Amino acid sequence: MSKQKIYNDPVYGFITIPTPLVAALIAHPFFQRLRNIKQLGLTHYVYPGALHTRFHHALGAMHLTMQAIETLRSKGVAINDDEAEALIIAVLLHDMGHGPFSHALENAIVQGVQHEWLSLRFMQHLNLLHNGKLQMAMDIFMDVYPKKFLHQLVSGQLDMDRLDYLNRDSFFTGVTEGVVSSDRIIKMLDVYNDTLVVEQKGIYSVEKFITARRLMYWQVYLHKTVLAAENLLLQILKRARFLAFKGHTLFATPAFTYFLTQPVTQAFFEQDEVLQQFALLDDTDVFASVKVWCNSTDKVLALLCSSLVNRNLYKTTLQTAPIESGIVQQWQTKAVTVLGIKPDDAAYFAFAGTVANNAYQLSDENIHIMYKDGTLLDIAQASDNLNISVLAQPVVKHFLCLHRNLF
Amino acid sequence: MSKQKIYNDPVYGFITIPTPLVAALIAHPFFQRLRNIKQLGLTHYVYPGALHTRFHHALGAMHLTMQAIETLRSKGVAINDDEAEALIIAVLLHDMGHGPFSHALENAIVQGVQHEWLSLRFMQHLNLLHNGKLQMAMDIFMDVYPKKFLHQLVSGQLDMDRLDYLNRDSFFTGVTEGVVSSDRIIKMLDVYNDTLVVEQKGIYSVEKFITARRLMYWQVYLHKTVLAAENLLLQILKRARFLAFKGHTLFATPAFTYFLTQPVTQAFFEQDEVLQQFALLDDTDVFASVKVWCNSTDKVLALLCSSLVNRNLYKTTLQTAPIESGIVQQWQTKAVTVLGIKPDDAAYFAFAGTVANNAYQLSDENIHIMYKDGTLLDIAQASDNLNISVLAQPVVKHFLCLHRNLF
Amino acid sequence: MSKQKIYNDPVYGFITIPTPLVAALIAHPFFQRLRNIKQLGLTHYVYPGALHTRFHHALGAMHLTMQAIETLRSKGVAINDDEAEALIIAVLLHDMGHGPFSHALENAIVQGVQHEWLSLRFMQHLNLLHNGKLQMAMDIFMDVYPKKFLHQLVSGQLDMDRLDYLNRDSFFTGVTEGVVSSDRIIKMLDVYNDTLVVEQKGIYSVEKFITARRLMYWQVYLHKTVLAAENLLLQILKRARFLAFKGHTLFATPAFTYFLTQPVTQAFFEQDEVLQQFALLDDTDVFASVKVWCNSTDKVLALLCSSLVNRNLYKTTLQTAPIESGIVQQWQTKAVTVLGIKPDDAAYFAFAGTVANNAYQLSDENIHIMYKDGTLLDIAQASDNLNISVLAQPVVKHFLCLHRNLF
Amino acid sequence: MSKQKIYNDPVYGFITIPTPLVAALIAHPFFQRLRNIKQLGLTHYVYPGALHTRFHHALGAMHLTMQAIETLRSKGVAINDDEAEALIIAVLLHDMGHGPFSHALENAIVQGVQHEWLSLRFMQHLNLLHNGKLQMAMDIFMDVYPKKFLHQLVSGQLDMDRLDYLNRDSFFTGVTEGVVSSDRIIKMLDVYNDTLVVEQKGIYSVEKFITARRLMYWQVYLHKTVLAAENLLLQILKRARFLAFKGHTLFATPAFTYFLTQPVTQAFFEQDEVLQQFALLDDTDVFASVKVWCNSTDKVLALLCSSLVNRNLYKTTLQTAPIESGIVQQWQTKAVTVLGIKPDDAAYFAFAGTVANNAYQLSDENIHIMYKDGTLLDIAQASDNLNISVLAQPVVKHFLCLHRNLF
Repeated sequence: MSKQKIYNDPVYGFITIPTPLVAALIAHPFFQRLRNIKQLGLTHYVYPGALHTRFHHALGAMHLTMQAIETLRSKGVAINDDEAEALIIAVLLHDMGHGPFSHALENAIVQGVQHEWLSLRFMQHLNLLHNGKLQMAMDIFMDVYPKKFLHQLVSGQLDMDRLDYLNRDSFFTGVTEGVVSSDRIIKMLDVYNDTLVVEQKGIYSVEKFITARRLMYWQVYLHKTVLAAENLLLQILKRARFLAFKGHTLFATPAFTYFLTQPVTQAFFEQDEVLQQFALLDDTDVFASVKVWCNSTDKVLALLCSSLVNRNLYKTTLQTAPIESGIVQQWQTKAVTVLGIKPDDAAYFAFAGTVANNAYQLSDENIHIMYKDGTLLDIAQASDNLNISVLAQPVVKHFLCLHRNLF
Repeated sequence: MSKQKIYNDPVYGFITIPTPLVAALIAHPFFQRLRNIKQLGLTHYVYPGALHTRFHHALGAMHLTMQAIETLRSKGVAINDDEAEALIIAVLLHDMGHGPFSHALENAIVQGVQHEWLSLRFMQHLNLLHNGKLQMAMDIFMDVYPKKFLHQLVSGQLDMDRLDYLNRDSFFTGVTEGVVSSDRIIKMLDVYNDTLVVEQKGIYSVEKFITARRLMYWQVYLHKTVLAAENLLLQILKRARFLAFKGHTLFATPAFTYFLTQPVTQAFFEQDEVLQQFALLDDTDVFASVKVWCNSTDKVLALLCSSLVNRNLYKTTLQTAPIESGIVQQWQTKAVTVLGIKPDDAAYFAFAGTVANNAYQLSDENIHIMYKDGTLLDIAQASDNLNISVLAQPVVKHFLCLHRNLF
Repeated sequence: MSKQKIYNDPVYGFITIPTPLVAALIAHPFFQRLRNIKQLGLTHYVYPGALHTRFHHALGAMHLTMQAIETLRSKGVAINDDEAEALIIAVLLHDMGHGPFSHALENAIVQGVQHEWLSLRFMQHLNLLHNGKLQMAMDIFMDVYPKKFLHQLVSGQLDMDRLDYLNRDSFFTGVTEGVVSSDRIIKMLDVYNDTLVVEQKGIYSVEKFITARRLMYWQVYLHKTVLAAENLLLQILKRARFLAFKGHTLFATPAFTYFLTQPVTQAFFEQDEVLQQFALLDDTDVFASVKVWCNSTDKVLALLCSSLVNRNLYKTTLQTAPIESGIVQQWQTKAVTVLGIKPDDAAYFAFAGTVANNAYQLSDENIHIMYKDGTLLDIAQASDNLNISVLAQPVVKHFLCLHRNLF
Repeated sequence: MSKQKIYNDPVYGFITIPTPLVAALIAHPFFQRLRNIKQLGLTHYVYPGALHTRFHHALGAMHLTMQAIETLRSKGVAINDDEAEALIIAVLLHDMGHGPFSHALENAIVQGVQHEWLSLRFMQHLNLLHNGKLQMAMDIFMDVYPKKFLHQLVSGQLDMDRLDYLNRDSFFTGVTEGVVSSDRIIKMLDVYNDTLVVEQKGIYSVEKFITARRLMYWQVYLHKTVLAAENLLLQILKRARFLAFKGHTLFATPAFTYFLTQPVTQAFFEQDEVLQQFALLDDTDVFASVKVWCNSTDKVLALLCSSLVNRNLYKTTLQTAPIESGIVQQWQTKAVTVLGIKPDDAAYFAFAGTVANNAYQLSDENIHIMYKDGTLLDIAQASDNLNISVLAQPVVKHFLCLHRNLF
């Protein structure tokens, strides 16, 4: 009788855990913590269904990887069982280094420490625990494994991570236009000269994938109200850290306190103790603390926090033209008066910034279309229309966030 | 240009907020707090997608109510605009009184206080705020409004709450068999002699609804691993409260501390202060605190908490026959030895209980089928087969929970 | 590079053709003809989406069979590659013997010849063509192959045919309540003592499957307007055959003429020529001819045909009580007067009949639930509630069809 | 009690018929005939699910129109009840003039007669029948009604016809990337200066719509195997007509014979008799006849027909570069030898052609985006990227069809 663990997934139906090692990795607290880290942070303030976690996403990406392995093998691509398991593990753990609300946290607290680097730190730890059995997975993850196409499935323009998150984010936000036919794209994958390629007849699906990604950027990831919420949390974390460094006592869970009150650099993370503390941190530490701070004696922190908790988000403008220099200054001046705060604190309530997106990058990790005669072309050249190369140009937008109490 | 607020919903597509009063109620912190209370508590430990909140469910039930109003009006049922808004509000706010993880919380902490009663307390508060504009909604909710069928849409065998939660829970768990054709059922609704009825041709959809509900009970709501997780949290809360009453200092958010350290009765809740504190409590307070308790000096609490956080749930047996009396005692004895705990504490690690489900109740709130000749029959009699009346008999199951460290 | 043929399927996503022999069978005209035979005959008169063909259904059932083989093999059930291909072929071809509008046709023309028998005749023909390579498939189909569980996947209470048609019919009619989680059921399948069984935890899915099947019967297959349309076509075919046998010349395609003008018995079908003619017949022959008959000089035929073509279907009553004997006679008398037809022809315009359905049969092909301790129970006993055994009792309903010109 | 007719639709759930006049139009034989005309002709040879009919599509477009009316009215756009019904009728009947397999038929038989013109002819007939009640619908259809935006909903870059067919064709083919969020687009519609516009925030949905349309062109509508099938039918019809005009007797239904044996011009269609005959013609006449022609004494016709019936379609090349002039000649020469046909008939078996697609046309019927300040911009200018204007350039592809017996 089968003892295979199966997860229900509203996106793909069922997800099967392929091997005992994979099951053990999923059961580890490092991985279980991802159950409490939402994939899209505060996006649920705009799309209430967007509560799916990095845990579920990692399982989904693993599932697609298993499908890709099956397709590639059926086309004669050599992937032995060890490589298959290593690839699956690399995909499963690729995002493990994410902390809660990483957009805000990475800017306010763990600045300069990439989540990929933390993922690798976690993997090293798990590798020790499992007597080196994760070495090949780490090699693939770091792109030092000889078969380069395996890394391209972990991280590339058309990797299993992207295929899953586009689908999953579309599904849970309800923005159905972002749905990608991952089935179809995966069935079109092949390997040529150790490079992951897409068969010629998959070209329209790839175009669609790139367009869907772009749509998700503007409709979801960079939605102006999502930006407003994330920037509000960012300002809260900055303020809390500022207060903590000044010696102000703030209620917070021990793990959160640990990171609020120390300088957090990559060197800092080299200590095992720090990694262990980081592994204790999730969305609930941050949000439970923010709720308490609504009653902080620090007026700035209290106002910012109650704005977040009660969804009184910044009024945000998102535009193609840069924000005129004087505008921000004017609003900050107004903030001082209206809110009765110090000039130094005005930037918490009125500020500008930029966001950028390019749906496709013309880099060495591009998407290759393989023609029946064996020719390889980059999708940007292969596409009937030039729009793909246009999509490769980054779109920069400028935003202005103003606290609603200023109106 | 429209200023109507629209929510994306992966279940129904779009949900439109009908009136400014409804929009104001949704914006209130009492309602916003539901964003952080999962509809299905710890069910996501079994079905990782089940992270949807009471916020989203309330919006969904409201949406179905608007559809029902439209259908009934199109059949000539008189519902004026005030009644429509009141009905919508009654449905929207009907579950507002839920706290975090209510199954566990209501058993361990706020025992004896029904969430419906708390919903009403919240409504009273909001009614004052809005100068009595919620009176009709409250009358419908309490079933003192003359048109009785309106209350039946709020609370009955076939109410909008159930229609939404079955659909939503099916959707997010991925248990597709639980999907109910709410569209079809709503289109079949009518009112006869001030009673909500279903047209004859809707009989099979109603049968399907009752079967789906039953399936969801056993497949999801009473899934043995879900029971294991909920009972684990229940034991944690009991232990924490036990320690708190003994004077043991426990880390917790202020709002959570408030409820851990005081007797929580209905009388207690009569105080406005208590309601305000309750409104501050959500899933994050509980989970963030439980995580900290993993390092408690109380061995029992620490073990229970780390079991929950690392998903080391009770090994659970669910069976039709009662658990033999000696069995629990044997396991408790073993627990004392194996875990090195006091006999008094053994019941945290080995215990038995019962769960019950009846998919349909033969009560005065039953489902009436209206025949073309005007006859009304209860669905249990109207159904071609007798299975519905069989479904009305409650199914009781007995469970045994044993901590995994005992094996 | 893969040369595997892949079909797009809105129900399952993609369907892959597993072997060259299977591909060759699909390409044969005997199988291609199924592209023009709708799975649900005239049901599209009620559910306009129900246009899916026996071709698509056969591919779908094949797809599920491949999934079942994968699941069973993963649980250690021995199925070698030859058996797998034979099973797939048996499922693929099991319905090949269906003619157009088989409900009507089998009653009016090829009475007494089962479609299973015709499927076998087709298989014999294809087996000769492929030098005996279909022998094992035929053995499985006829249940003479030693591993009995293989036949149970082709034909049984829970066979791949039923799983597919319930899903497919739900999908294309839009009656979403009929959706069966074929994925989940298949994942629960196992084999015990050469018998196909369902794991204990699959019990609710099986209950749901049986309920869904029952719902589809009353909501779709035996919908009174579907009955009206099928009975109208049945009367048309009876009349056409009556006229043809009387020597009346009727426009029809040659293949259709062949069957309208000869006695069609099983013995008749033993001739290869007859099978070849039958293979030329599909929905278009029947409908194109019926359209022409709207202008027949035979008043009865013309009226019946224009009623079908213009969707002027019988007014139909479906009830639990038998139709009172005098009623039909009264309406027939009225038909003679109102329509100006001969008394002998009145039965074309007013008649009664019965339909029956039992969602589950307590036969030797029942559904076995396997408990963890190895016990096998029939689902009717295993179910918590008795409703399954109730469902096993056939429901007979009586109908009365009256031509609308009588009102 | 409601007597509103409701259709089940797997795409939208339910479609309600709004008024008795609309119900009467749907019941008319002119409209009922659409039940037997597939929306996508022979596309089901590639996508077996693509069997949906023009009947279902027309109902779907009507449904979206009702949604659009509701949205526009909620934004204060004046549409009175007469206009609403007229608009609904115009959309419902806009495609009524299509015959079976129109791509092939319009090229081979009714050349030079537009289906829109035939739709209008049908409307005129129905208008007489309903005492002029369709006049406003016809005015909207012909764009002579004062409120121009109504016509834009019937026929324009973003009309209800396109929204429905993209969704419906995606749904039934299973090419899920073509799914358009019609809900979202419709919710973004508004009217400004009597012009249909899209609100600014709908820009990405419109981009997605245009990309989806382009994808559907290459993936479905102009799929090379679909081209192969349609061109094969086109050659069959040409040959049949050629033979018929030469006096060769061909089996065909009377309605089909009528059009095979006469010159079919617009003038010809001015006769009521012709329109009545045309209304009798559907897919079954054509396919049932083609099947009979497999045994024609004309070798060319017999070979072409059996190729279609048994899905032995042209081997087709689709390319950006034009087909070299000598190639076709070479293959035609080969055809004469290999197939033993006359040189004059070689073009039935080897020929070249072109297809074109532009996903968006920069015409006066373009899509306008309305900014919050009231500015209107064409989507091609409003889009962040230039790809839309690129999409407006038609893509021409060249194809070469060669009968498989030549290989």
